[in-house]
Amino acid sequence: MKAFVFHGPEQSAWHDVPDPGIQDATDAIVRVDSVSICGTDLHILKGDVPDVRPGTVLGHEAVGEVVEVGSGVRTVRPGDRVLVSCISACGLCRFCREGAYGQCLGGGGWILGHTIDGTQAEYVRVPFADLSVHPLPATVNSHHAVLLADIYPTAYEVGVLNGRVGPGDTVVVVGAGPVGLAAIATAQLFSPGRIIAVDLAPARLEAAKRAGADTVVNAAEDPEQLVADLTDGLGADVVIEAVGVPASFEMCTRMVRPGGRVANVGVHGKSATLHLESLWSKNLTIRTGLVDTYSTPALLRMMAAGRLPTSSLVTHDFPLHRMEEAYDVFSRAADTGALKVVLNSGPVKDRT
Amino acid sequence: MKAFVFHGPEQSAWHDVPDPGIQDATDAIVRVDSVSICGTDLHILKGDVPDVRPGTVLGHEAVGEVVEVGSGVRTVRPGDRVLVSCISACGLCRFCREGAYGQCLGGGGWILGHTIDGTQAEYVRVPFADLSVHPLPATVNSHHAVLLADIYPTAYEVGVLNGRVGPGDTVVVVGAGPVGLAAIATAQLFSPGRIIAVDLAPARLEAAKRAGADTVVNAAEDPEQLVADLTDGLGADVVIEAVGVPASFEMCTRMVRPGGRVANVGVHGKSATLHLESLWSKNLTIRTGLVDTYSTPALLRMMAAGRLPTSSLVTHDFPLHRMEEAYDVFSRAADTGALKVVLNSGPVKDRT
Amino acid sequence: MKAFVFHGPEQSAWHDVPDPGIQDATDAIVRVDSVSICGTDLHILKGDVPDVRPGTVLGHEAVGEVVEVGSGVRTVRPGDRVLVSCISACGLCRFCREGAYGQCLGGGGWILGHTIDGTQAEYVRVPFADLSVHPLPATVNSHHAVLLADIYPTAYEVGVLNGRVGPGDTVVVVGAGPVGLAAIATAQLFSPGRIIAVDLAPARLEAAKRAGADTVVNAAEDPEQLVADLTDGLGADVVIEAVGVPASFEMCTRMVRPGGRVANVGVHGKSATLHLESLWSKNLTIRTGLVDTYSTPALLRMMAAGRLPTSSLVTHDFPLHRMEEAYDVFSRAADTGALKVVLNSGPVKDRT
Amino acid sequence: MKAFVFHGPEQSAWHDVPDPGIQDATDAIVRVDSVSICGTDLHILKGDVPDVRPGTVLGHEAVGEVVEVGSGVRTVRPGDRVLVSCISACGLCRFCREGAYGQCLGGGGWILGHTIDGTQAEYVRVPFADLSVHPLPATVNSHHAVLLADIYPTAYEVGVLNGRVGPGDTVVVVGAGPVGLAAIATAQLFSPGRIIAVDLAPARLEAAKRAGADTVVNAAEDPEQLVADLTDGLGADVVIEAVGVPASFEMCTRMVRPGGRVANVGVHGKSATLHLESLWSKNLTIRTGLVDTYSTPALLRMMAAGRLPTSSLVTHDFPLHRMEEAYDVFSRAADTGALKVVLNSGPVKDRT
Repeated sequence: MKAFVFHGPEQSAWHDVPDPGIQDATDAIVRVDSVSICGTDLHILKGDVPDVRPGTVLGHEAVGEVVEVGSGVRTVRPGDRVLVSCISACGLCRFCREGAYGQCLGGGGWILGHTIDGTQAEYVRVPFADLSVHPLPATVNSHHAVLLADIYPTAYEVGVLNGRVGPGDTVVVVGAGPVGLAAIATAQLFSPGRIIAVDLAPARLEAAKRAGADTVVNAAEDPEQLVADLTDGLGADVVIEAVGVPASFEMCTRMVRPGGRVANVGVHGKSATLHLESLWSKNLTIRTGLVDTYSTPALLRMMAAGRLPTSSLVTHDFPLHRMEEAYDVFSRAADTGALKVVLNSGPVKDRT
Repeated sequence: MKAFVFHGPEQSAWHDVPDPGIQDATDAIVRVDSVSICGTDLHILKGDVPDVRPGTVLGHEAVGEVVEVGSGVRTVRPGDRVLVSCISACGLCRFCREGAYGQCLGGGGWILGHTIDGTQAEYVRVPFADLSVHPLPATVNSHHAVLLADIYPTAYEVGVLNGRVGPGDTVVVVGAGPVGLAAIATAQLFSPGRIIAVDLAPARLEAAKRAGADTVVNAAEDPEQLVADLTDGLGADVVIEAVGVPASFEMCTRMVRPGGRVANVGVHGKSATLHLESLWSKNLTIRTGLVDTYSTPALLRMMAAGRLPTSSLVTHDFPLHRMEEAYDVFSRAADTGALKVVLNSGPVKDRT
Repeated sequence: MKAFVFHGPEQSAWHDVPDPGIQDATDAIVRVDSVSICGTDLHILKGDVPDVRPGTVLGHEAVGEVVEVGSGVRTVRPGDRVLVSCISACGLCRFCREGAYGQCLGGGGWILGHTIDGTQAEYVRVPFADLSVHPLPATVNSHHAVLLADIYPTAYEVGVLNGRVGPGDTVVVVGAGPVGLAAIATAQLFSPGRIIAVDLAPARLEAAKRAGADTVVNAAEDPEQLVADLTDGLGADVVIEAVGVPASFEMCTRMVRPGGRVANVGVHGKSATLHLESLWSKNLTIRTGLVDTYSTPALLRMMAAGRLPTSSLVTHDFPLHRMEEAYDVFSRAADTGALKVVLNSGPVKDRT
Repeated sequence: MKAFVFHGPEQSAWHDVPDPGIQDATDAIVRVDSVSICGTDLHILKGDVPDVRPGTVLGHEAVGEVVEVGSGVRTVRPGDRVLVSCISACGLCRFCREGAYGQCLGGGGWILGHTIDGTQAEYVRVPFADLSVHPLPATVNSHHAVLLADIYPTAYEVGVLNGRVGPGDTVVVVGAGPVGLAAIATAQLFSPGRIIAVDLAPARLEAAKRAGADTVVNAAEDPEQLVADLTDGLGADVVIEAVGVPASFEMCTRMVRPGGRVANVGVHGKSATLHLESLWSKNLTIRTGLVDTYSTPALLRMMAAGRLPTSSLVTHDFPLHRMEEAYDVFSRAADTGALKVVLNSGPVKDRT
């Protein structure tokens, strides 16, 4: 089959590789229908994620059809259309028993396109299939569902739920990339009083408005003052960091009110400064987290019921074999306006 | 009356000042029976707390007898023996309505010995008396009760409750000064599996054992390795910072397990480094906080019922008029072994 | 002044009474602009609430203008337009400190129109004014705001929050009277997957649809089967009882799924049967409660921001002096279609 | 092998049956070392549990050694000493994913000795072994560990955790049989202020004292008045029902304070009366539940660390083959003083 393979910094390519096969009784083989590219993949391409060894097929987000299952798989069978989650779960370790699948100690966690071959391929082997793929309702199209592989549960669990967004709250989302936009979308499930989006790119601020932000502000135009003005000087109830750089995180800790919550969603490569000399007395809660995907079944039900706005996040579609071109477009987001780029093995139907 | 007055860095003294009187209808005047010195007072003496203006009577912890109340005071009257809380509460602002008295927007919060005259005096005026003093059960002696003015609710709310200590948990307390020891004592209310105390001073580690720590380790002897060894390499469920320096806080974030909680109790003067490059994916909860004292009535009931171990924290008693000597002993804790120093206006009875 | 006074069963009337005056330092006198009638008032009229002594002015819901305050009132002053809450709060007892104002031990709780004179009058004395009235933002009109005196916080706290409605949940509301409709409206703040309303009156089911119910079903047409069909036979996540009769409560306990929540909002006059022989193993949570009104400030902010749908609940307006006629219309709801009846001292402006 | 088989009301016996074998890939066969009898077994003997078909081996509590596992079992293997939980868990259904194993929709839940052959035998087949047996630390003896198969997690989860016992609380436990005693023991993990035990049998009240009750009261001697006297007339914070009859449950709802919790642990055969005419306004939380056993690993760790008092519950030991005699002693508890009766296949070592 064809797959997109990492061969060291700046040396990845779409080429032939052997087809995957069942290795463990709990494996499933899934034929990929839709797959997307994550910001993390760009980091891998540059060589910033040393756990990824050359020769690894990238990708951790997909929708497809089960074509084969191991003898121990109980919940899906060939022919089932499924979402392939970015997180695999052994289901038996102490963390999996608590739904903290992202911290799986039994061989799961984020492994696809990381420590084992991933989803940017015609076929993918998914370990621990029972808890790592999710059967898709017929009413959900693949092109939308692929957003539930990673960015929606990430935004919802690590941003909105960890931040405990509630009715009437003032919520700031710093960073209006795909995950930030998904945080804006899912924060609305709790009817906050006001969502303020912060970004440097005007196009992303426009997307934030479409996703449901009530107020948008360019990061260069003193968002801290704006938040203070809108909150009697107290600060926001919830601030969600969706960028992943120290300056952004530090701004978040200045924009939150006493007793408020900072939920970090961004993937960070460097340490940040925590100003405990002012924050020690502020009754703050700071949360970090890799997604666990415990919310994926609930998000799927909401999507099937039409209660989850998703379409505005996909800006580009490509056939699967044009993977390299898709990476190029995605990597030049400032020029191309790319948010989420999706590749499909067949024609894109009923895109709505 | 006599009082201990701040006159600028290294220029504080016990001398005559005018007696306090009722200024607002919600004030009470309390005659001080027992008063203690807090580590924060030492910072003030050095000039590190610029909010404290020269001429201010210091002190925010006391037990005494109400001698006069304003016309608006409803719950106490002259003759009542009360605990004077380190936090005053207007009771009407949005934060007070939620029990977040430490963040009071209506003129309360930490004001005694900070922005108004405090408790290290023969008499103290307490604003918002209804929610800022607590009547004392007869069975509780003043000498113990003064520990509930600040360090017990601080350790319990900001350390133990914010850290969500639970049955079977591994709990690390970094810093075995008075507040750290109170955290060790109150953590036991939730039956953790193991409490590990970390400090540099052997005498404090001994005190930690007496307060209930199961394991003590000198900060110089690789406490991180010890915690890893005791937790299958995962880290502690809860880590409580009770020192207030960057290195200590940073160690706490290395000792906590995925999904664990870091509760900062220490008062910090400098920023710390938050290693988001490793922590972003670790599902951590980091809490900060000034005490709110919402738990004080419950702690008082527990003390009255003999369920709160307190005696081991008081190492030195002085008559009230020997305040300057008490400060000297307290400020040289490494030499004197001082933990909590209490000053009393009369003889110390029934010290048990 | 004029007021509506209870004189024993079926003997109440609108007539002259003495003007109220300040009795305690924490009192406020409010001139009533808008007042509404509650289902509980009808029970009182019949003599079903023996705590109400003859001679008592009825009513516990109002909006008006402060005309006088006692010396101890700190947060409002003459000229302020305020919401008079159905619950008064001393603010100092153990329950008030936790926000459980409805259980106040210090002389508050539900007292207006119950144990002291109430709001169905030209003027009303409100004890403990600081925590018992709420200043109104200018953008909120009196005619809508009066719904926040009782039914909105009741539906929200006792139904929606106690029932822990969450995104994607199936929620059943049994009883589509004013409080049930307010539950339907506020449940939407948490984006449930589906709200099912049950009632016997077709007009109320229509109102339920307008309030946001996704599905309505007549109580005579096997709502239990409908709920089972919509939930794979499991039952609803949350069932809110808003009728107050045994058969309704018992139906609620049959419609809830294992692990689900039953939130009782209805005011009951008789005991119900709890089928523990089937429910003991079902992991249920059953909540009861008088409203505490801790959520009133948040609801007011949401109303001011236009985030709380309220207009559909008021079906009839009357001038204040036509109180007896308003009671007649309200008491014959089946004929008149009355939901909420509001009386106003002046013209009704900007009704939207 | 030998087993205790139900043959219809009053017709059960210990006799030869075929050895169990692996039926599904997720099964394990366990050789029984220690097994106990549960009150529920007595109900089955009388024919009160119609789900139990004649021919079924009874018993749902055991400790033993794994002798064979199916091909899909991942966490235990022959030779492992394990606790057999009263609850089996498929691990994949919506309830199992939330840790609500008792409500398993995938074929688990309470099945042993109920819908399939149970543990009162020389060998038992345990379905879904990975989540249904728990490896035992070497330091835990079988004779104590068998208490963790059912009564300890039941008392802890359904009584103590559902009742949200907290520091300083007044806790009433109604019923001092084995589960009530385990509730008294585990309630202490949260340092309540006072535990009051209620029972009719003086011997059980004595056992309650040994288990940690602060106060015991005979059910015939007005326990309601005692609770009122000890709580300023308010009632208890938490009341745990551990009897299973209507009168007991109804008493619990009278003994709880406003805002308090009633946690029902008792297995009920009849409906109770819920006095909503007085309880509707009392802000109560009533919980019911079958045990889920999500806490079993934590309880095992606490037992291994010596932090769980258990020995006082076992009053009688028998060799396994004297099962019928053990049933006789257990069924005449009033005469024999039996609390928990344990049968062992070998000699009872290190009983402490």
